[in-house]
Amino acid sequence: MFDPIKWENSQLILLDQTKLPNEEKWLRINKLKEVEKAIKILSIRGAPNLGVAALYGAYIGIMNFNGNYEELGDELDIVCSSISKTRPTAHDLFAALEIAQETWKNAENADDAKSKILQKAHSLKEQLQERSKIIGEYGAEVVPEGANILTHCNTGTLAAPGDGTAFSVIAEAHRQEKVEMVYADETRPLLQGARLTIWELQKRNIPCKLNVDSAAGYLMATGKIDFIVTGADRIALNGDAANKIGTYMLAVLAKHNNIPFYIAAPTNTFDKNLKTGKEIEIELRENKELNSFGRCQTAPDGTDGINPAFDVTPIELIDGIITEEGILFRKD
Amino acid sequence: MFDPIKWENSQLILLDQTKLPNEEKWLRINKLKEVEKAIKILSIRGAPNLGVAALYGAYIGIMNFNGNYEELGDELDIVCSSISKTRPTAHDLFAALEIAQETWKNAENADDAKSKILQKAHSLKEQLQERSKIIGEYGAEVVPEGANILTHCNTGTLAAPGDGTAFSVIAEAHRQEKVEMVYADETRPLLQGARLTIWELQKRNIPCKLNVDSAAGYLMATGKIDFIVTGADRIALNGDAANKIGTYMLAVLAKHNNIPFYIAAPTNTFDKNLKTGKEIEIELRENKELNSFGRCQTAPDGTDGINPAFDVTPIELIDGIITEEGILFRKD
Repeated sequence: MFDPIKWENSQLILLDQTKLPNEEKWLRINKLKEVEKAIKILSIRGAPNLGVAALYGAYIGIMNFNGNYEELGDELDIVCSSISKTRPTAHDLFAALEIAQETWKNAENADDAKSKILQKAHSLKEQLQERSKIIGEYGAEVVPEGANILTHCNTGTLAAPGDGTAFSVIAEAHRQEKVEMVYADETRPLLQGARLTIWELQKRNIPCKLNVDSAAGYLMATGKIDFIVTGADRIALNGDAANKIGTYMLAVLAKHNNIPFYIAAPTNTFDKNLKTGKEIEIELRENKELNSFGRCQTAPDGTDGINPAFDVTPIELIDGIITEEGILFRKD
Repeated sequence: MFDPIKWENSQLILLDQTKLPNEEKWLRINKLKEVEKAIKILSIRGAPNLGVAALYGAYIGIMNFNGNYEELGDELDIVCSSISKTRPTAHDLFAALEIAQETWKNAENADDAKSKILQKAHSLKEQLQERSKIIGEYGAEVVPEGANILTHCNTGTLAAPGDGTAFSVIAEAHRQEKVEMVYADETRPLLQGARLTIWELQKRNIPCKLNVDSAAGYLMATGKIDFIVTGADRIALNGDAANKIGTYMLAVLAKHNNIPFYIAAPTNTFDKNLKTGKEIEIELRENKELNSFGRCQTAPDGTDGINPAFDVTPIELIDGIITEEGILFRKD
């Protein structure tokens, strides 16, 4: 298996996702600035992966520091503050930096702090791998035999240690020989499905086909899909789930065609501050993502647009939310 | 107004749609081979436009022929046979070539035949412009005041003389000052919405925004859409309509969100050989349309895919079919 975040010979080894699928380029990082750049330009992405990279980054930022315990604490503050500015809305990244600072507090001396922060980075990655495995196992239970599965965006190991979230359900169902075919929505505008999910499926020899997002309806109406699973970015307390734009479309089409629709996400995706999905603010991104792809212009100069990054799928359309604590089924 | 098919100084003037939206290049054509090339490489497209171009093409093919009446008939057969091979499934193109041959039959001599075929091309274009105008007028009646309209693919003057079909409804409603905003699905994989519909809307100063296809659900669920209209490629006798991939998705989302969904198409779109949409065969196109855009690769080499060109929207999801004979409403 490939692992897009590794620690080898005092270096953080990252698969540069900006180069996929054309090139598998590995970054070998031992400087704070390089970690920050990799996070900023999305060489590494996905909330859980960002947490792990940030914690390794905190270690890299102090590993060659020669001051005493107190001085190391001050240095760590500077390092964490700097890393926290790379992706200002990444909750998992902040949580990881807090782990680094807590670990320093509980350490006996400077060397002990350094060594324990590195250990915490290793163990965070292991915990997330284990969490992914459990999500996959719970999810595989509801995948029918011989399933043709549809998924959206990228939720695999390129997003989270282990097999990811929704992707972990697919990978585990495939290990259990329950998967006939996986259809991947290309996921415009940034094409995470075409660029990343298809690449991961091919790496694992899982049979897969790519489709444009708007062909999902055709696939469902013509009986080609038995099961749908996506990830989620944020879930309100009532179960309404925000995820990559297009997820709501899949859920409505699934309901209309009587196809099971599941969300797979760790429990920390639930946001206690949100009673329902109506309170979730949707990020509107730049129009340039709509007007071009790579170097190719796709719309006239100066075209106005609306480019929501996410949509909200109400719990009424979700058959179950697969977490590491088990599957939360909707009460009807 | 711009007109993508004109006859000026014994030349057929075509707007080269393959260059849009980056460049407005006009082709000046007076040779049969040039007409055929323009049709083949999609410089001109849309069933009604193809009919007009083919009839002008038949005239261009014989306009410099110097034989007698019978010899002209033989020459016209050769010309029509050659044009008919450019787009082997284009019904309107064959119908136009039949007009040319019928016109020869009813002509008094060679010069009369030539002159009447040119007149028929002019009058076919005028008939189609008139048909488009009537579709627009009928359709505008069901557009609500201050409407935010969503449409899919390209159905404007780049597809049919006049204002096209679904686009004609939007253009007429805009003339009647009923339109607040038009949202155009980009329409993957070939992006006719982004490249052509947005370009046409901008040319007419109709306020418009571009969105990825999968954002249609977000737009509807957040109350941004009041009315949806698309074209159709083929309609079965029960009203089931085949149209560009993604149309079915819009219709299901519209039903779920209680938004009126209309099809606009001339009556000759109905196919008497099809009782229901289940009998409509869906063209599966090449995967290369999914794996790249222009020179930009969007998926790994050798990716398998499924690329249906059309989907079928069942009549249960269609509020009305707007034709030049009036609006056909669904019986509930």
